[in-house]
Amino acid sequence: MFEHIAILAPGLLGASVAQAVRRLDVARTISVWARRPETRLKLKQLQWCDQMHDTPADAARAAQLVVICSPVDAIAPLATLIAPALAPGALVTDVGSVKGEVSRLGHAAMRAGTHFVGSHPMAGSEKTGWEHARADLFTHRTVFVTPLMESDPAAVQRIVGFWAALEAEVVTLNPDRHDEIVAHISHLPKVLASTLCSYLQHRDHTWRNYAGGGLRDTTRIAAGDPHLWRTILEQNRDEILHALHAYQDELHHFQMALANRDWLEIQAIFERGKAYRDQFRPLP
Amino acid sequence: MFEHIAILAPGLLGASVAQAVRRLDVARTISVWARRPETRLKLKQLQWCDQMHDTPADAARAAQLVVICSPVDAIAPLATLIAPALAPGALVTDVGSVKGEVSRLGHAAMRAGTHFVGSHPMAGSEKTGWEHARADLFTHRTVFVTPLMESDPAAVQRIVGFWAALEAEVVTLNPDRHDEIVAHISHLPKVLASTLCSYLQHRDHTWRNYAGGGLRDTTRIAAGDPHLWRTILEQNRDEILHALHAYQDELHHFQMALANRDWLEIQAIFERGKAYRDQFRPLP
Repeated sequence: MFEHIAILAPGLLGASVAQAVRRLDVARTISVWARRPETRLKLKQLQWCDQMHDTPADAARAAQLVVICSPVDAIAPLATLIAPALAPGALVTDVGSVKGEVSRLGHAAMRAGTHFVGSHPMAGSEKTGWEHARADLFTHRTVFVTPLMESDPAAVQRIVGFWAALEAEVVTLNPDRHDEIVAHISHLPKVLASTLCSYLQHRDHTWRNYAGGGLRDTTRIAAGDPHLWRTILEQNRDEILHALHAYQDELHHFQMALANRDWLEIQAIFERGKAYRDQFRPLP
Repeated sequence: MFEHIAILAPGLLGASVAQAVRRLDVARTISVWARRPETRLKLKQLQWCDQMHDTPADAARAAQLVVICSPVDAIAPLATLIAPALAPGALVTDVGSVKGEVSRLGHAAMRAGTHFVGSHPMAGSEKTGWEHARADLFTHRTVFVTPLMESDPAAVQRIVGFWAALEAEVVTLNPDRHDEIVAHISHLPKVLASTLCSYLQHRDHTWRNYAGGGLRDTTRIAAGDPHLWRTILEQNRDEILHALHAYQDELHHFQMALANRDWLEIQAIFERGKAYRDQFRPLP
């Protein structure tokens, strides 16, 4: 599908892209750049790393597709850095969790004949780092592709085709609409998990020794990398504030029902929540 | 360890008790009562059901230990119902999620020479019903045993020994203290998961099709049985209100930090949450 792909700053997602590309034979050559020299030494020895480069521009130079896998605050700077080195017709995408600003800055950074179209695979984890990568990480997972009005349709089509080739369920969406949605279905759950843990830490941290499956699952994403999440919140602050505000109304409504012993309403909320949860798309 | 055990109203927990008792050879005979005649017909055929009875009293009559596995609002009524039929020295326990009222009413229901001591295995699931039972459900899981001041020490010791024989990590605790703890580490997470789902259902229910692992895990317990959970909240309303109130302060504090772009505080909350979550006791 591609002759040559470049992966910049591979962590969990980037290394999984590389493994999936190799497994599904989506590109012949994979070139890589990683920020730390010691990571470059290690990745060099992996079978999915055909060429290791010391700079992002060198890694990107011969590629038809560059996938930027850095934390969200480094995506636009990396796009700007590699822009002059890109081959004619080259495509650039990313795997960041917030898409509005990144999509606009990435698009603006490109020179004539090269294209930036943002992506966001809903396949992250509280585990980060290339050591946790999996060649089937994207299989049946949602991947958002977020073109602007002014994006080149053929470039968008090729990015969509790339993720489809990695067995993802691709959803094309306006970047701002994307950010509104993930504020609700990804960033708000993270905030609830982290504030619950933070509260319980204050309250009595020894109680965690009694944790059943409910607390374990509810709080799993609280274990995610604090700095990575901070940068995500920095870029999606307004949408998360909206979601948090509206959610607190729901929680307050529940609290009032409990205070008033309105058991019918309590049960109705539990039933509505169950109906919602029961209809999640099953994963294989 | 016991000659004869009775399991009343087996669901996920009760049938798992029976399977674990059989696997670990903790009793010779298991007698069973289930509320629905059609369930009695089905359970009769399972290898862990030695005797099926048509009434709770008949099932309890010959047992040295009776385990009441009904929803919390039926535990004390069942204890009262079987009390006259119990053999001298018989022990009664339960697997309910709230312990204050149940422990007091259960204790009060007993006649001289028989003993009620409450239990609560932290091994429930959003899945209910004996079909989902597992013979290793209690292995390495916390089981609370909640004696009163006036409970017979030898009876408490035998109940503790029973759960230890099922490979659980037993924690003995005052019933009111138990209810305060589970309000925080079990009931509050349930309320957050259910209200999050209920909110998202209002907001745009189609977004669930994009759910990643974070939303899936955070909301898993929202799929639990609404009526069972309602009865749990009915019995632990005051403690849950306290926990909910204090948690909302933490959430509001987070919201203010986000509104004020206090990224250091946001990251500090994420770090505190991660430190808490990272130190959960690992499960094998």
